[in-house]
Amino acid sequence: MIVALKPGVQKEKQDQLIDWLKGMGLDIHISTGEYQTILGLIGNTEKIDTELIESLDIVDSVKRVSETFKCCNRKFHPDDSVITVGEAKIGGGNFCLIAGPCSVETEEQIIEVAKSVKAAGANMLRGGAFKPRTSPYDFQGLKGEGIELLKLARKETGLPIVTEIMSVSDLPLFSDVDVLQVGARNMQNFDLLRELGHTNKPILLKRGLANTLKELLMSAEYIMASGNENVILCERGIRTFSDYLRNTLDLSAVPMLKELSHLPVIVDPSHATGIARMVPPMALSATACGADGLIIEVHNDPIHALCDGAQSLRPDEFEKLVGKINAVREAIK
Amino acid sequence: MIVALKPGVQKEKQDQLIDWLKGMGLDIHISTGEYQTILGLIGNTEKIDTELIESLDIVDSVKRVSETFKCCNRKFHPDDSVITVGEAKIGGGNFCLIAGPCSVETEEQIIEVAKSVKAAGANMLRGGAFKPRTSPYDFQGLKGEGIELLKLARKETGLPIVTEIMSVSDLPLFSDVDVLQVGARNMQNFDLLRELGHTNKPILLKRGLANTLKELLMSAEYIMASGNENVILCERGIRTFSDYLRNTLDLSAVPMLKELSHLPVIVDPSHATGIARMVPPMALSATACGADGLIIEVHNDPIHALCDGAQSLRPDEFEKLVGKINAVREAIK
Amino acid sequence: MIVALKPGVQKEKQDQLIDWLKGMGLDIHISTGEYQTILGLIGNTEKIDTELIESLDIVDSVKRVSETFKCCNRKFHPDDSVITVGEAKIGGGNFCLIAGPCSVETEEQIIEVAKSVKAAGANMLRGGAFKPRTSPYDFQGLKGEGIELLKLARKETGLPIVTEIMSVSDLPLFSDVDVLQVGARNMQNFDLLRELGHTNKPILLKRGLANTLKELLMSAEYIMASGNENVILCERGIRTFSDYLRNTLDLSAVPMLKELSHLPVIVDPSHATGIARMVPPMALSATACGADGLIIEVHNDPIHALCDGAQSLRPDEFEKLVGKINAVREAIK
Amino acid sequence: MIVALKPGVQKEKQDQLIDWLKGMGLDIHISTGEYQTILGLIGNTEKIDTELIESLDIVDSVKRVSETFKCCNRKFHPDDSVITVGEAKIGGGNFCLIAGPCSVETEEQIIEVAKSVKAAGANMLRGGAFKPRTSPYDFQGLKGEGIELLKLARKETGLPIVTEIMSVSDLPLFSDVDVLQVGARNMQNFDLLRELGHTNKPILLKRGLANTLKELLMSAEYIMASGNENVILCERGIRTFSDYLRNTLDLSAVPMLKELSHLPVIVDPSHATGIARMVPPMALSATACGADGLIIEVHNDPIHALCDGAQSLRPDEFEKLVGKINAVREAIK
Repeated sequence: MIVALKPGVQKEKQDQLIDWLKGMGLDIHISTGEYQTILGLIGNTEKIDTELIESLDIVDSVKRVSETFKCCNRKFHPDDSVITVGEAKIGGGNFCLIAGPCSVETEEQIIEVAKSVKAAGANMLRGGAFKPRTSPYDFQGLKGEGIELLKLARKETGLPIVTEIMSVSDLPLFSDVDVLQVGARNMQNFDLLRELGHTNKPILLKRGLANTLKELLMSAEYIMASGNENVILCERGIRTFSDYLRNTLDLSAVPMLKELSHLPVIVDPSHATGIARMVPPMALSATACGADGLIIEVHNDPIHALCDGAQSLRPDEFEKLVGKINAVREAIK
Repeated sequence: MIVALKPGVQKEKQDQLIDWLKGMGLDIHISTGEYQTILGLIGNTEKIDTELIESLDIVDSVKRVSETFKCCNRKFHPDDSVITVGEAKIGGGNFCLIAGPCSVETEEQIIEVAKSVKAAGANMLRGGAFKPRTSPYDFQGLKGEGIELLKLARKETGLPIVTEIMSVSDLPLFSDVDVLQVGARNMQNFDLLRELGHTNKPILLKRGLANTLKELLMSAEYIMASGNENVILCERGIRTFSDYLRNTLDLSAVPMLKELSHLPVIVDPSHATGIARMVPPMALSATACGADGLIIEVHNDPIHALCDGAQSLRPDEFEKLVGKINAVREAIK
Repeated sequence: MIVALKPGVQKEKQDQLIDWLKGMGLDIHISTGEYQTILGLIGNTEKIDTELIESLDIVDSVKRVSETFKCCNRKFHPDDSVITVGEAKIGGGNFCLIAGPCSVETEEQIIEVAKSVKAAGANMLRGGAFKPRTSPYDFQGLKGEGIELLKLARKETGLPIVTEIMSVSDLPLFSDVDVLQVGARNMQNFDLLRELGHTNKPILLKRGLANTLKELLMSAEYIMASGNENVILCERGIRTFSDYLRNTLDLSAVPMLKELSHLPVIVDPSHATGIARMVPPMALSATACGADGLIIEVHNDPIHALCDGAQSLRPDEFEKLVGKINAVREAIK
Repeated sequence: MIVALKPGVQKEKQDQLIDWLKGMGLDIHISTGEYQTILGLIGNTEKIDTELIESLDIVDSVKRVSETFKCCNRKFHPDDSVITVGEAKIGGGNFCLIAGPCSVETEEQIIEVAKSVKAAGANMLRGGAFKPRTSPYDFQGLKGEGIELLKLARKETGLPIVTEIMSVSDLPLFSDVDVLQVGARNMQNFDLLRELGHTNKPILLKRGLANTLKELLMSAEYIMASGNENVILCERGIRTFSDYLRNTLDLSAVPMLKELSHLPVIVDPSHATGIARMVPPMALSATACGADGLIIEVHNDPIHALCDGAQSLRPDEFEKLVGKINAVREAIK
């Protein structure tokens, strides 16, 4: 950490600061320049409150040099992580296609969608059982029953299942789920993250609506620091002043996250745009910038879907898209 | 709900849509204009997925007419809600000053701060025991022990205590806390909100970093719909492109929330700005636009605070500020 | 335009509003529903101030039904516009690669870069002569001299030249420039737009940092309504809370703009990311979602560039990228 | 400027960078720490492209230490600037109330409003003659004729007049205007700013919709560096994801701008909120955090205003507000 003092600071005040920093177990390298003194803080600076120091009268600026995330940092783990889910792999060149309906509704629905997305080339089945809804009066999902239906669809098709968990207390219901999804609204529900770190399940961690890349990586770090290294990052659109689209899909996050971290990064074009006809171009776009996979909403009968139908593809649209995704993957090799 | 069809829609497709809507139990008023047909949907339209309808080929636009929040809506409850906490009242002209350190650290610290903020005019004591931190490696608070220290400070001063709850599983530890705070990161932790709705404790609900006013009100609605009407809303800064300040304090949210809802609205200038010397002007500013109270960080010894010291006032600064707050309250009467 | 009145409005007030609207030359269709009266306003509603109406006591909501942009609207011009610049074409399936340095510096520099980008497959040469800089103390470009150097490079290579105009008073200097660029900061400099509408030059219109798609289209409308239909839209990143990247490249704007308008849409991945190594993935990503072209910074010697060197590709990196761009174009056909 | 190199950099590469920096006329102080080497760059570092340096392989981070704005910087001019306009003064404890209609419409209108705002306590009259409108089809103002009407109102009341200039070529029409306003959309129209720097008129510079405080100060710097030190800064709301309000009024910008700069800072609550009934609380709020003045829309007959009527106060509402503003000013002394 580098602390630049203001020009012309009194020796006495400077010494007082240095003593206080030393009292926290740090070594201080003093570099006295022509105009300004710079302190280099060596040691375990993670617990230093940079804002407190920056607020002091005699300090001009403070800058952290080292990264504060470790487990997910590519610096300390140069190779891509590869996460295995049943027969599917994500990361390290393995592309993963997760598809399925927004919500699990009935046995017929989920099995029919599962069969059609498998036929089209999907590696995993998604479907919401616990639904985070802005309004308490909206449909909240079939919950435990929805998970049971997902398992039936898995039995029928062999596809591993991905579904969202909203609360630590629901964990027992997820013991036979393949991938646990943490939704955007829970990206900084630290108690949930820590608890998921005590499982050995792959965790699909969605970026929050207004969270920076660093915050996303720190949330991954909560899971990993608790012992579970199987984290998949997911970009799903951020909140901006956008007028025609629900969110702004931040695709430059993909190559940047892959530079910063060894974890796989996938993209959700369905929730980002909220409009089915925008899903194919944005799915191709995400593939072209190096995403390790996609999670796409597919529904067999959009008009009857209980929620988010406007953003779901029909199976035939999805199948056509998969062909193009594969062509783009070939093109960027 | 109003559905405007595109000009020149085929009668057959129009009838198909109308049948489907009727199938959902709605009455449809058809208004055939010169250029465009407009459907008025009457009945329980809350479960209608507007985006699905908007995505249909023949539909031009969809607009909800009625509000989706009820318990907290001023339309159905014109008078201000007044929430009572011990001897303190919030709302309906009652102004509430909540002050205290960011984190509870030691018995001496919390009691000393409690005494000094009480002497300066505070009505309640705040102090973090469970701390939501971006990094898993940062100090996470004294947890249960911190709550015990807050109770000692309450015993000493008589000030009701306010502290943050992060997880449903910690609820038993909060049984003797006066006001439970839901932090910005948990504003859409719907399971937590629902559970807090089953208590009868006043809930201090902070607005999320990128949440709209409607979303904040819907989160209040989660608590209220579960049976607990004691909700206090709190504006604490939103995330923007701000360069010199941590967040952007959205003070126009105050009169707008008070127009939309009967719930009391308070402001947290400490977290919004992150800079102690910006707290007094923004506290006065919040008072002048009609806030029902303030929550302000006060620390007896900023340089040793474990976190957020840069944004805490010293007791003497807080005391001076309280005098001006009272003068501004008088001025706007 | 649809005006929904509040439930239970007095007949007298309703009639007053209707008279006032009629006084503005509109026909009013009154649709009296069970709970609420809806007014359909027919006629030239463009000059109606929706916010004024929305602010009236008796009004619940106002909604415009028709679009306010005409010249650039795909509804009234279903086929893609194709813009021809020398031998290059943009739009309607014609892909355009514009490349060159951030600033024109010397004759040697601009000619060398022009030759190398032409060899790599670029159709046009870009180079800044007038530079909009946040600080008055930063390098402001070679101005007229820079334009002369661009013409020399055009003579040498045959590539049409693209450069930014910042002020109406500089127009005479641009009489022999092929494409005039309007930068992000001038997207709503309406006097400049109107004046460019009186030329017959193709205009490359960059989206402003915080402008919506509708505002971008309205700015195109300023140029087109003045008589110049040769407008190329350009997405170049928007301002958000982004931490590791300068701006957030909003690629979903590409398919949405192409749905709303017949104008060609290109993408600038260099300014959006500000980091050379992020340019190739984002250029491929832009191609995959259907952009009609790219504008990319290429420099022969980044370390000596006077500005923005960090975001420029070397000629060999650009050449490699062009190969992949072509492969992606093939893949999405 | 401080350049931190990555740990373990080769001596040869480090020397190459140092030579290049020295070649730009800088002195380099090398501070070799235990883990990392830090270069202190002394001299005229303003033309250094920090992003270029940051992009180099061997560099970990770059940080500017000194400010890049000078003329408007409080460091070099500790006392508040006071700007005099006729009998009005702004800054240094002088509060200024600018009021008037959005647009100048007729002689009767502007004179009537001028008289009533003067009677209520306004020091200056505002009124739009040149109107920047998102759509080319919207009313663009009375232009030159509007300025003539403003002068008549000034003659009648003695109030100095404030009106917006959009283009350098209109400058001759403004020769007898007292204060020239630069609108939010033109905040970075650098040619206009520079030209206004060559006049001696007070300039009211509005913050752009998505501009940082630093960018606002740099735009003031363009005017001041050209010779005109009479700049008044104006916060008027920024663009965010706001749902119920047009923009987000960023009031914490007021004390922060006043800390960074000696220039007066005023607030426009009318454009920020876009809703007349939100103007009084936000005007009081702006006063309470230390603004040097307010610019408020007042109209004698909102229903007939050609634009923005929804945000204008009636004269009697304005008069009542002025009384409270004065009370708040007294309270915060």
